[in-house]
Amino acid sequence: MHAAKWSDSEKRIARRAFESALQRELSDIMAEFKRLASAAKEPDDMWSVEQFLATARREVDSKYDYRYSQLQYVFGRLLREGRVAESDLQGLSEDKLSTIRRVASL
Amino acid sequence: MHAAKWSDSEKRIARRAFESALQRELSDIMAEFKRLASAAKEPDDMWSVEQFLATARREVDSKYDYRYSQLQYVFGRLLREGRVAESDLQGLSEDKLSTIRRVASL
Repeated sequence: MHAAKWSDSEKRIARRAFESALQRELSDIMAEFKRLASAAKEPDDMWSVEQFLATARREVDSKYDYRYSQLQYVFGRLLREGRVAESDLQGLSEDKLSTIRRVASL
Repeated sequence: MHAAKWSDSEKRIARRAFESALQRELSDIMAEFKRLASAAKEPDDMWSVEQFLATARREVDSKYDYRYSQLQYVFGRLLREGRVAESDLQGLSEDKLSTIRRVASL
């Protein structure tokens, strides 16, 4: 993938799609965290929650990488996972969308 | 501290006092964990809970060391913290109790 240039309007679209997906994913993690915490009965259940949070935090940190050099990969993965829709990305150049779709199909 | 011999009856007393203190401490951690989890609103609150659990787990692992070579230190600390009472330790030899009290006073 060549280093793509991002216009100002593409950057705004990207930022909005990225932040929405991140906030939704954090909300999902929060909901699961609260479910696990409230169901916890034994000490081992607490340590499982600790493990769940550590894994979730590492995944979010590595998945949501807002560098323009990485962003087509990031959106490709988010599209594959259903965390962004193609409609969220309307306004990006056709070559970016095509790369994103290709990554999504991997 | 010399390596003390533990009689069978002392071992039973020690095991019971140790397990009770450990279970109470785990219950305290569980209660605080549930309080923090249910109060969590923002993603950062989740990562604070993760940190709380990691710290609690490391402290419990290092504090509750049931090796007879360590047990007088362990009970000394637990006595200082109010997690065991002297009455829980009745039946241990006077020299063990005296070491435990000395450690408790540090």
